[in-house]
Amino acid sequence: MNNIQSYIKEHKTRFINELIELLKIPSVSADSAYKNDVLKTAEAVKTSLENAGCNHVEICPTQGHPIVYGEKVIDKNLPTILVYGHYDVQPPDPINLWDSPPFEPVIKKTDLHPEGAIFARGACDDKGQMYMHVKAMEFMTTTNQLPCNVKFMIEGEEEIGSVNLATYVKANHDKLKNDVILISDTGMIANDVPSITTGLRGLSYVEVEVTGPNRDLHSGLYGGAVANPINILAKMIASLHDENNHITIPGFYDKVEELSKEERAEMAKAPFNLDAYKKALNIEAVYGETGYSTNERNSIRPTLDVNGIWGGYTGEGAKTVIASKAYAKISMRLVPNQDWEEITQLFKTHFENIAPKGVTVNVKPHHGGQGYVTPIDSIGYQAASKAYQDTFGKTPIPQRSGGSIPIVSLFEQELKSKTILMGFGLDSDAIHSPNEHFGIFNYLKGIETIPLFYKYFTELSK
Amino acid sequence: MNNIQSYIKEHKTRFINELIELLKIPSVSADSAYKNDVLKTAEAVKTSLENAGCNHVEICPTQGHPIVYGEKVIDKNLPTILVYGHYDVQPPDPINLWDSPPFEPVIKKTDLHPEGAIFARGACDDKGQMYMHVKAMEFMTTTNQLPCNVKFMIEGEEEIGSVNLATYVKANHDKLKNDVILISDTGMIANDVPSITTGLRGLSYVEVEVTGPNRDLHSGLYGGAVANPINILAKMIASLHDENNHITIPGFYDKVEELSKEERAEMAKAPFNLDAYKKALNIEAVYGETGYSTNERNSIRPTLDVNGIWGGYTGEGAKTVIASKAYAKISMRLVPNQDWEEITQLFKTHFENIAPKGVTVNVKPHHGGQGYVTPIDSIGYQAASKAYQDTFGKTPIPQRSGGSIPIVSLFEQELKSKTILMGFGLDSDAIHSPNEHFGIFNYLKGIETIPLFYKYFTELSK
Repeated sequence: MNNIQSYIKEHKTRFINELIELLKIPSVSADSAYKNDVLKTAEAVKTSLENAGCNHVEICPTQGHPIVYGEKVIDKNLPTILVYGHYDVQPPDPINLWDSPPFEPVIKKTDLHPEGAIFARGACDDKGQMYMHVKAMEFMTTTNQLPCNVKFMIEGEEEIGSVNLATYVKANHDKLKNDVILISDTGMIANDVPSITTGLRGLSYVEVEVTGPNRDLHSGLYGGAVANPINILAKMIASLHDENNHITIPGFYDKVEELSKEERAEMAKAPFNLDAYKKALNIEAVYGETGYSTNERNSIRPTLDVNGIWGGYTGEGAKTVIASKAYAKISMRLVPNQDWEEITQLFKTHFENIAPKGVTVNVKPHHGGQGYVTPIDSIGYQAASKAYQDTFGKTPIPQRSGGSIPIVSLFEQELKSKTILMGFGLDSDAIHSPNEHFGIFNYLKGIETIPLFYKYFTELSK
Repeated sequence: MNNIQSYIKEHKTRFINELIELLKIPSVSADSAYKNDVLKTAEAVKTSLENAGCNHVEICPTQGHPIVYGEKVIDKNLPTILVYGHYDVQPPDPINLWDSPPFEPVIKKTDLHPEGAIFARGACDDKGQMYMHVKAMEFMTTTNQLPCNVKFMIEGEEEIGSVNLATYVKANHDKLKNDVILISDTGMIANDVPSITTGLRGLSYVEVEVTGPNRDLHSGLYGGAVANPINILAKMIASLHDENNHITIPGFYDKVEELSKEERAEMAKAPFNLDAYKKALNIEAVYGETGYSTNERNSIRPTLDVNGIWGGYTGEGAKTVIASKAYAKISMRLVPNQDWEEITQLFKTHFENIAPKGVTVNVKPHHGGQGYVTPIDSIGYQAASKAYQDTFGKTPIPQRSGGSIPIVSLFEQELKSKTILMGFGLDSDAIHSPNEHFGIFNYLKGIETIPLFYKYFTELSK
């Protein structure tokens, strides 16, 4: 592509300011209190797509938050790229741990981001990475260099399991027809170690409720004589892992993809410094499944984590009470071949089975999605690899990610096309955490790399 | 005593209305937001003692909430009764489970209270039971039948461990000098089965904090690779009981008083219906330490209960996060001979020892108190027994309670006098729970019985 670098240089400040404006809107999809802000964000995305040269831009209503669609079809005979992203964000809490308000973006330098990074909820996940595609589109249309057809599908429910996306996709096969799907919602190893995500973990997210006595009880009068739902919940959660941190749910591992020695050896080549990892998290030791390395534990192995727990008196001071109910939110990360609905059912059955007499258990499935692995010999992967080589001067490393983008396998199933995960964030960008940020370097590098993917994908498709 | 029944009959409505006014003030000692209401309650108690004929009534400041003191000394040669009670109440949450607002008292009939009961936080624990003594005092002074000296010490921090009472008692030995201490802050078996509490459990209340990574993490990118503080906390809590529900803290049982076969047989005579017990709590089965009955588990055996737990995302919807910290409030009920400070230290040491590498643990002791057993051959117990015989027409059953009133052992140690626990509440009155209530029958029966205790204690002391 011609003069992409000069174009970015010229419009850099505007690119950053536009993203900052988008980040100011608190589009928290998990909390209905933010419903209007989510809608406001959808409208802002619609406008940005129109300004970038898209046609037929529309806000498509769903049972939940809407999907923003836009396209530019220049020639039916040319390949079509479908860009997916999401404009919703994770809840910002715990708010008090943010150094600056989550929806008042600020730019600060960090060790890993000497050129500065934008600090705000959604800066990296996914408003920042989604907006790179909008600006790349602007460049290609403004300079008449768009080499193929493009479709944008930007949703507002990714952080709550894309609950209504499947319905939309199933109802719009023709409209969404494409040759490859492009997503920037993952990370890369380092700013000088570009990587492309070739695998994702699946997810099963459930909420459990343990009920004991029909009312809160005085822990003196009843303590020791009735099942305490909190103690029982703790006991049940503890029993979900054995002494080797294997998950104890019967059948849980039956379909887990076992990697070959060679594959594991290949993975082990990815640069990783355990001391730096521990230091960054300020932990004395890592912790996980016996027999696997840290990189394997968070990518090729399934996991079970409690994401939230609550029950009884949690206020100031002391209350001597036995709570009637205790709750937990539990998520399982799944690997290829594990079916999330099957795993959810296995969990439900097991959790209900291990409940002792004296309590009742209610397991409520939240959402989930399948794991995914993409081949590195596809035209899409090759095009992405060449694009990174041009902009980073290095061949990107194929990498399995521990994260989940459930809709990737949905896309393959419904739209019969592969997804390329060109992520430009860093693990240290603190997505889902306080002080989430996205490097200016990464943001601009993304805008520079994406058009080259379009170019090479079109060429290799001939 | 003459015409006590007619006096109560005459003033019944006023007695109830005065208590209702007192219950309207939300004196929640655990929550600093209610500081002014706690003070307002102290002032109301002061006024009520003055109106009941007490002299030298004063509000004594402490480091925390004040103590209300009042007395009527008619003759140095007569015995002196020290009445203890508390005007603070438990936090009302969970508010949504109350059928009527906790600080807007209403009178409703129940199966166990056909004459009606007052529903409000503190109705039974302890405003209602404390106020019985104020009205009994009013009767004795108004009708010139006060047979001995009386001192009132009504505190405002019982629900948070009487943190400043010890200092006050130690500083006022002469002022508080007495021959017996009278407290109504316990229950009786049933309205037709009067009982007197002869034993109380001690208490050790701690708060634990488990810290893993220095920030909340994305459960996809880090799940399975780092210690999750919530999973670890659950595992640590679960390990505090073995498969027989014995507590696993080393040394925990070393000083536990073991009752003889005979004593246990005597206890077993107290009327108890397990089916009714389970039905009242809507539980399929009771749950507790192997080898002990329900009545033993909640009275003569020590226990460990989690009173509150929290960590991670507890809001609406789903958040795939690994929390940096998880917390729990844990209380242990202790039996005679267990020293609460020693047990607290044993817990702290053990809990820190079982923390795996990858997390750090902080144990913060909240408060505690010793267990207590009172002899039934004392003048005080005999006087109480005779008083119940007059008003209930039955000899009361001596009963061990599972609850704790830490200050009882403090009183014995500092003031060298025994405490008589004349409680008129029922276990089903839901103290510390939503819809706490106190029967009108019980309230008036208390007012009727208390003056008789004064009479018999004075006579037996001659």
